[in-house]
Amino acid sequence: MACSCSKSGGKCACSPGACTCPNCSKKSRDFTDFLKPATPTGPDILSKERGQSNVPIEELSKHLLSRNDFLTRQDRVLRVLINEPLFNKDKQQNLSRPERYHLGLARAKKLRRLSDQHGWDDEDHAMGQYLCDDVSPYMVHYAMFVTTIREQADEQQRAYWNPKIEAGDVMGCYAQTELGHGSNVKGIECEARWDPKTKEFILHSPTLTASKWWNGTMGRTANHAIVVAQLLVPKSAESSDYVSHGPHPFIVQIRDMKTHENMPGIAVGDIGPKYGYAPMDNGYMLFDHFRIPHSAMLSNYSRVDPNTCTYSKPANPAVVYGSLTYVRASIIMHARLIMARAVTIAVRYGCVRRQFQDRDSNDKHAPELSVLDYPTVQIRILPLLATAFALHYTGQAMQDLYAGTRAQIDRGDFSKLAVLHAQSSGLKSLCTELAANSIETCRRAMGGHGFGGGSGYIQLNNDYLSKPTVEGDNWMITQQTASYLIKRMASAVSSKSKPEDEVDEACRGWLKDEHNKNVPTLKVLRDDQAIVQAFHRRSRYLTYQAYVAREVKKHSWNSLLLQLRKVSHAESQSILVTNFFNALHSDQDQVSPTLQGHLATLFRLFAYYTMDAEARDFLKANAVSDADLDELPTLIQQLMSDIRPHAVRLVDSWKVPDFLLDSALGRSDGKVYEDLFNSAHRLNPLNEITFNPHYKSDEIVMGKGSDELQKILAKL
Amino acid sequence: MACSCSKSGGKCACSPGACTCPNCSKKSRDFTDFLKPATPTGPDILSKERGQSNVPIEELSKHLLSRNDFLTRQDRVLRVLINEPLFNKDKQQNLSRPERYHLGLARAKKLRRLSDQHGWDDEDHAMGQYLCDDVSPYMVHYAMFVTTIREQADEQQRAYWNPKIEAGDVMGCYAQTELGHGSNVKGIECEARWDPKTKEFILHSPTLTASKWWNGTMGRTANHAIVVAQLLVPKSAESSDYVSHGPHPFIVQIRDMKTHENMPGIAVGDIGPKYGYAPMDNGYMLFDHFRIPHSAMLSNYSRVDPNTCTYSKPANPAVVYGSLTYVRASIIMHARLIMARAVTIAVRYGCVRRQFQDRDSNDKHAPELSVLDYPTVQIRILPLLATAFALHYTGQAMQDLYAGTRAQIDRGDFSKLAVLHAQSSGLKSLCTELAANSIETCRRAMGGHGFGGGSGYIQLNNDYLSKPTVEGDNWMITQQTASYLIKRMASAVSSKSKPEDEVDEACRGWLKDEHNKNVPTLKVLRDDQAIVQAFHRRSRYLTYQAYVAREVKKHSWNSLLLQLRKVSHAESQSILVTNFFNALHSDQDQVSPTLQGHLATLFRLFAYYTMDAEARDFLKANAVSDADLDELPTLIQQLMSDIRPHAVRLVDSWKVPDFLLDSALGRSDGKVYEDLFNSAHRLNPLNEITFNPHYKSDEIVMGKGSDELQKILAKL
Repeated sequence: MACSCSKSGGKCACSPGACTCPNCSKKSRDFTDFLKPATPTGPDILSKERGQSNVPIEELSKHLLSRNDFLTRQDRVLRVLINEPLFNKDKQQNLSRPERYHLGLARAKKLRRLSDQHGWDDEDHAMGQYLCDDVSPYMVHYAMFVTTIREQADEQQRAYWNPKIEAGDVMGCYAQTELGHGSNVKGIECEARWDPKTKEFILHSPTLTASKWWNGTMGRTANHAIVVAQLLVPKSAESSDYVSHGPHPFIVQIRDMKTHENMPGIAVGDIGPKYGYAPMDNGYMLFDHFRIPHSAMLSNYSRVDPNTCTYSKPANPAVVYGSLTYVRASIIMHARLIMARAVTIAVRYGCVRRQFQDRDSNDKHAPELSVLDYPTVQIRILPLLATAFALHYTGQAMQDLYAGTRAQIDRGDFSKLAVLHAQSSGLKSLCTELAANSIETCRRAMGGHGFGGGSGYIQLNNDYLSKPTVEGDNWMITQQTASYLIKRMASAVSSKSKPEDEVDEACRGWLKDEHNKNVPTLKVLRDDQAIVQAFHRRSRYLTYQAYVAREVKKHSWNSLLLQLRKVSHAESQSILVTNFFNALHSDQDQVSPTLQGHLATLFRLFAYYTMDAEARDFLKANAVSDADLDELPTLIQQLMSDIRPHAVRLVDSWKVPDFLLDSALGRSDGKVYEDLFNSAHRLNPLNEITFNPHYKSDEIVMGKGSDELQKILAKL
Repeated sequence: MACSCSKSGGKCACSPGACTCPNCSKKSRDFTDFLKPATPTGPDILSKERGQSNVPIEELSKHLLSRNDFLTRQDRVLRVLINEPLFNKDKQQNLSRPERYHLGLARAKKLRRLSDQHGWDDEDHAMGQYLCDDVSPYMVHYAMFVTTIREQADEQQRAYWNPKIEAGDVMGCYAQTELGHGSNVKGIECEARWDPKTKEFILHSPTLTASKWWNGTMGRTANHAIVVAQLLVPKSAESSDYVSHGPHPFIVQIRDMKTHENMPGIAVGDIGPKYGYAPMDNGYMLFDHFRIPHSAMLSNYSRVDPNTCTYSKPANPAVVYGSLTYVRASIIMHARLIMARAVTIAVRYGCVRRQFQDRDSNDKHAPELSVLDYPTVQIRILPLLATAFALHYTGQAMQDLYAGTRAQIDRGDFSKLAVLHAQSSGLKSLCTELAANSIETCRRAMGGHGFGGGSGYIQLNNDYLSKPTVEGDNWMITQQTASYLIKRMASAVSSKSKPEDEVDEACRGWLKDEHNKNVPTLKVLRDDQAIVQAFHRRSRYLTYQAYVAREVKKHSWNSLLLQLRKVSHAESQSILVTNFFNALHSDQDQVSPTLQGHLATLFRLFAYYTMDAEARDFLKANAVSDADLDELPTLIQQLMSDIRPHAVRLVDSWKVPDFLLDSALGRSDGKVYEDLFNSAHRLNPLNEITFNPHYKSDEIVMGKGSDELQKILAKL
């Protein structure tokens, strides 16, 4: 049994004498119980780090995490979870994937029962999922099934389904992606053919590649599914000539409500182990001429008249893009928490870990340096710390923008939707890429222990790496942003009518004042405003190049894809820098001068680091001088030195609980080595078994003969 | 039971009718048995791809894989493994980490018994490990324990230990790294204190951080260990004043030879789950005043006189660096196989996977494009294909160099060792970085299925990601290369004596002919030789900058670390480009004109791609003109188009067996979707269980009450 006492925020390091819980006192004691790590110890190091900085942690936490009561909610839900043995993470890395599903299902149920018990709202429940850190087998039910019913079902359908959902009887999933088609939704093969005689739809999978695939919650958990299928309707009730109306959603019962066995005519199951998502039952599903009633087609927007076979289209399909924008703003807000979590571990352990004395030091007995003192470690971690802030301000700005235009959208005014959608595509791509890469970058900067189970990076990485692909593949969706920008530049060049929106206006300004003009480069080393302008100028410049290649030189779209991605990233970087700058200079949300100073340093680090990586672009765009670009590496190193003493308090301010970090290296109390050793020596089930290592014997476990070999063979 | 029949090279896709093995015919049949993937099918696509290219596969395979009989050995060993059920990989992703150790141990034993049975030599056995693809629990025994006895033990010690090792009775590991110290070996805390009274060493771990940590094969398998400890010897037999002589190796029995229980006074065990290395028992070990005899100290180089306490030093410690160079050349040769494996999967599935029609096409019924036709996919995969070749030629060149100087080294002439060691450090850093990143880059280019268990990337990535850290952390060891280069540049600047070696000479040439001279830039677009010269010029330029910063401006070493890393990478890239070029123009090892043409294209792609990523350096070094650098993106895209039709045959030439690939996406026969579906529908143990999804019940498995919940709780 793992120690599940609640010391140190639920993660007990079981130092002998310090921990007196029944579990720990049962453990056999040995000489290692009396050993301490070498000095300076982790706790001493971290308290020194915290003592040397003036970062106002509480002010900064409020600044970052007040929206929607995040902080108080986190505290409240954490207090509940930490006392439930089911949410103990100490030994879960030893579980097999099938066991992780069992555990995931048990936790999903428990979370929902806790919601009932404590009167949690949806956001509290989501916080529970976030802290539990499982990709829950119930996840798609909440995230997709319930929302699709709400948005796509008509009033009658909602009245029928909602009570069953609320009672917990109907557990649903969302089946769109197929074995052969993901990105190209229009290419899906599953068919829903209207049979005017029986007045039913016939769901059918004509090929193996038509199998639904990846759909979460479907593999083992759900008893219902929203199935997206090509709607085929006869030209008239008498015709045998079918017309395809493209993909439409249907609600389908897929398992028996009593036995939970698959419905006859449906093959459905779990697709097996994946990179991450161990507790989630991503599924496959095929239909063999499976009949569903007319009421199965979700009919808020489109419907088929059961008598005449007339098909009516949705009024305005753009509505869908509205919520996509909201989803993507949330993805950015989530990405910043992922980065904060990765960087919290890296900064704390980067201080605790010491390796080598200063090569130039004359003092032979000088203590070894914290690895975070080396520029080679700083350059991997501190720009990411700054990036977490950059993502924060843009995530907020996108949420605000969406909220601001929501009313317009509801009135049917979609004029701002195009820019919102274009921006959110590029930002989703860039921000999830930055966050996904940050985990592995931090992990590698931690030396050997980064590869160990105590790093806190393994599950984080394995789960998060889905993000660059889902909700629009990161490389693919940059086309949407670039395509929009090229259109606006074309409109600006033609200058026929009024500017269509702010981007069009910005393009016109650039064409008029900067393009082919002998304007001076921007003084980015002296002036933060100039940094923002330099990012704008470079984005306009690249947009114009792409416009010329496509619209003037008529290059093929596919031959331009790399250039288009570059345009999209440049625009997204420009947005990140602009929102960061605006937040620092906004009258709203005033911060203390001390905090303002730290945020300005982080702003510059993010901006210069981003600029340095793409220096040649800024030069070509006549945005920054060659001499100024040459200065950037030195400046970046200086800014990192400025931030270094404040790094621990800066990450502390993100308030990632130890329970969520689940990292020996990143523990807030610095007891890194105690925790690593405790996990190995006292919590590792493999150490309870004695093996027979001699190659001539096929006995695996000492004294068990060939039994264990047979057991393993049976599982292969 | 998984299907373990030997169809399709050991990986049966169980298409109904095609497979008649007893396992498959036992499976319950359903309507999915009769479904086929949509056309064009994978096999059709791949055979078309293979038909359109003139790459001479057999010639290229021999060119790449003849050394040391690699290809014939691979075939021979593969035929044995493929028929052993124990090496079946179909369901192993469902095993827990403790189960993976059980399986790993069983496989390690079996491999060694197969060696006896088939009369395999060490290389055959190593091939078996490579194809099995487990990080074997016996690995460190062979890789470190046996070799350390060979090199560090004196004659008498070897005579004592070798027979026990050969009989398989002694199973050893190598315990150097500790919880608190890895990179800085001199900082380890474990002590071996000579007790002149009892004539024993006392091994002791004074702190928790002194615990040995990470040491493979030690956790559960080994009964002996080479323990590296600080040697403490009294000034004389009577003195109580101890002198430290730094880390030295000792051989220690750590477990009972009969019961395999830990020896009293030693705490040793497995450290628990890690990122990868599931079958390997990386261990921890602490000593409590554990006494070992005088004969335990390996004494080929240094020894302690048991009577006088006199310590004798090794004659020349540089010997050690010789074999380090060899190890690092092997790391490069291994890295190229890792890249070839990653790219094989990516190229094949990149052809089979089709998504979207050409946006500019007028044909509404045109088939969707292979994703490998998109430049956004090409740019991630094809430069990596070229890089695998670049690594190949440099790995070979380093092995040849080492073999060429081995005789010198054996004669005590270490003059070429410095340059070899410096080059191998930088190359280890760059090449393992390229290989490690290639896996994840390819994986993300595969869309959703890259995240799935059928990708073949999961274990590959999890295991290989240890490489950027082990055998010298990739960021840290670039200092060794840069430090050497700065010394040579200093020697060239002072020009006092004759050049010390070829690098010194090259620096003198650059100072004389290129530095501060108005020489024209190199015509890299017209001439392959000029490409090589451009890489040299840039490396010399950056070396000179670093020399000035350190030796003239006297900047602190640590403030220069980022610059030093850049210098090291530039030099390593220069070596890669040079060896690639030389191999293409060598009189030895002639290839056919057809193959020569393809290799030249790959050379240019690798060189231009590398140059483009660091364009500003080449400009600053006056190596390439701004106008030429502007052309690179277009040229790279053109080269990728040239390679595209030959991509499948180029990866085929690396001859990575399906058994090793273990990838549905990368199957040589293209049956991607059949394999993915078979794994999910017929081989997934989770689908044999029916669950109870209702949140109000704490029953997990239908009909089992709360039993399963209790079982899971007991494992937390």
